[in-house]
Amino acid sequence: MNILAFAGSLRNGSLNKSLLRAAEELARENLTITIFDLDEIPLFNSDLEAEGDPKRVTEFKEAIRQADGILIASPEYNHGMTGITKNAIDWASRPPKDPVMRYKPVGIMGASPGITGTARSQEQVRQALKALGAYCMPSPELLLFRAREKFDENGVLTDESTRNFLSKYLNAFSEWVENFSK
Amino acid sequence: MNILAFAGSLRNGSLNKSLLRAAEELARENLTITIFDLDEIPLFNSDLEAEGDPKRVTEFKEAIRQADGILIASPEYNHGMTGITKNAIDWASRPPKDPVMRYKPVGIMGASPGITGTARSQEQVRQALKALGAYCMPSPELLLFRAREKFDENGVLTDESTRNFLSKYLNAFSEWVENFSK
Amino acid sequence: MNILAFAGSLRNGSLNKSLLRAAEELARENLTITIFDLDEIPLFNSDLEAEGDPKRVTEFKEAIRQADGILIASPEYNHGMTGITKNAIDWASRPPKDPVMRYKPVGIMGASPGITGTARSQEQVRQALKALGAYCMPSPELLLFRAREKFDENGVLTDESTRNFLSKYLNAFSEWVENFSK
Amino acid sequence: MNILAFAGSLRNGSLNKSLLRAAEELARENLTITIFDLDEIPLFNSDLEAEGDPKRVTEFKEAIRQADGILIASPEYNHGMTGITKNAIDWASRPPKDPVMRYKPVGIMGASPGITGTARSQEQVRQALKALGAYCMPSPELLLFRAREKFDENGVLTDESTRNFLSKYLNAFSEWVENFSK
Repeated sequence: MNILAFAGSLRNGSLNKSLLRAAEELARENLTITIFDLDEIPLFNSDLEAEGDPKRVTEFKEAIRQADGILIASPEYNHGMTGITKNAIDWASRPPKDPVMRYKPVGIMGASPGITGTARSQEQVRQALKALGAYCMPSPELLLFRAREKFDENGVLTDESTRNFLSKYLNAFSEWVENFSK
Repeated sequence: MNILAFAGSLRNGSLNKSLLRAAEELARENLTITIFDLDEIPLFNSDLEAEGDPKRVTEFKEAIRQADGILIASPEYNHGMTGITKNAIDWASRPPKDPVMRYKPVGIMGASPGITGTARSQEQVRQALKALGAYCMPSPELLLFRAREKFDENGVLTDESTRNFLSKYLNAFSEWVENFSK
Repeated sequence: MNILAFAGSLRNGSLNKSLLRAAEELARENLTITIFDLDEIPLFNSDLEAEGDPKRVTEFKEAIRQADGILIASPEYNHGMTGITKNAIDWASRPPKDPVMRYKPVGIMGASPGITGTARSQEQVRQALKALGAYCMPSPELLLFRAREKFDENGVLTDESTRNFLSKYLNAFSEWVENFSK
Repeated sequence: MNILAFAGSLRNGSLNKSLLRAAEELARENLTITIFDLDEIPLFNSDLEAEGDPKRVTEFKEAIRQADGILIASPEYNHGMTGITKNAIDWASRPPKDPVMRYKPVGIMGASPGITGTARSQEQVRQALKALGAYCMPSPELLLFRAREKFDENGVLTDESTRNFLSKYLNAFSEWVENFSK
């Protein structure tokens, strides 16, 4: 199964990008995770869209269309998902009559330096994805708090119990995707 | 009192931009509303920020700093605020130790073509603004549903009862701002 | 398929109870909807629970356990789900290691006298049900606004377009339940 | 200033009840905190209300009416506020034209055994209180995570850094209440 993954942060040292790379590493052979970088996705503008999707948006939507499932690492800024995450979802909700994300099984996870582990951010991602008819896995949830302590200076996930939980999460996600592929 | 206003949409024909222009028109003499266009605010990236705020972001933060209050017209995309709105708030939450938006009295309103009148979008704006210590007016709320019927083809608010309600809303907002200016 | 339905309101003339009765009436032969009344469910108290579930709670949990799917009509009080709805879900989240509601396919709908059609209430129901691992149908959503105009004085759903939409909703729900029954 | 406080849990050993008792203990002389027990508040039912508020509800609403501010300790059940908390707010939202809670300055806090510190619960409390026009203090927020470690076996808050933070929280709350008492 081909999984398209993206993190809602643009900075290089992003904890959530590191979390996706850990997922890529830990995924079993039946799950191929490809990370898509949101860097060149512009802010949504339907006037712009009317002239044709920007190149990077076309690539993003095509990558979603071809994927069996979507994995989102959602940072928390200001008690919610980032503008970056929401903006990507806003593009992925198009065209309105047949959003590319519709019917896609989705896994949501997130890492934060603080204690709440992106709880509020993940709720908003679910709310948005429900709007476009995607299928978000309800549980398990992966809320990685005090995440800085769990990666080394190269962004490698070194915390053993988090690695184990992430593996379990990916197994559950793989079943979730399979359930909707039939 | 100087009010800085912005709408979380980039398209020209935006209902929420039109709503702000109606607010500008209907504001009493004690309230001067200035509309700030979010067009050139880039997606938030703390690597970028580390090199200095982009020019338009500097202007945005400076305009907020100088305002006595903030008025936000928040469209609803996919059952939440737009990536555009959240991205603007993410910039306005900086620097973390002293966000420009902190202690600012804020009014939130929104217009949508459908029936829910941006209810879910406005909740998310409140949640984000609380995170940076802004003071959102709890009521009255202005949820303009089926908004296309309420403006003419030039984006002028023509619906009489909406005009009256907007005037009342602005009076309440003006008192709210005053309460925190003392 | 046996569907257990409940409305998060205790009053006799509840619009949401009427909506469930309309669903009961319009359900096709493959869907049997049984309405459960929340009247005698007490407020959740784990001290009370430690002495054994109250009789009505036992019945509620047993009815959920036996159902193939759950249908919830969720009124909106004060911009969220009612205490009644949340309290029922809090009981249904027990025991923590194996909530009776886990893995149950769920349909959520709601009716309100105002314009927002219980949008905010339904979001909270989804958030709670995700916590206990239930499978909420993402779409279609049924938000019945200005609901008083759509029922007659006996609480019968008379509005033709709402009746049609409710039938479509139930068909989609029936497929959703079937998907998870395999 | 007289502060009415309540916790959204009925069980005796409630962490949130203990948190309120700690607040009572740590409050400076200008703040008198009175804890109101929600035990006998029945589930909201407007048919019941039409016959006159139940005795305990009358007492609850009267206590709110007389208070200068409200302090809520909000546990988190199933990723949201408890049915108990919401039910109390639903009663306090009455009568609709002049809710007893309107214009009341409110402080929200919460304790949870897990890591998220009632983040999601507190957001819902804010959303509900905004609906009835109460004034919730935006910051500081008090999210007490892994709370079991912070109280002794008698429910006394023994963790020093939490005691300090709670004192600061109460000072800020006291200023918040004062701001609206003028």
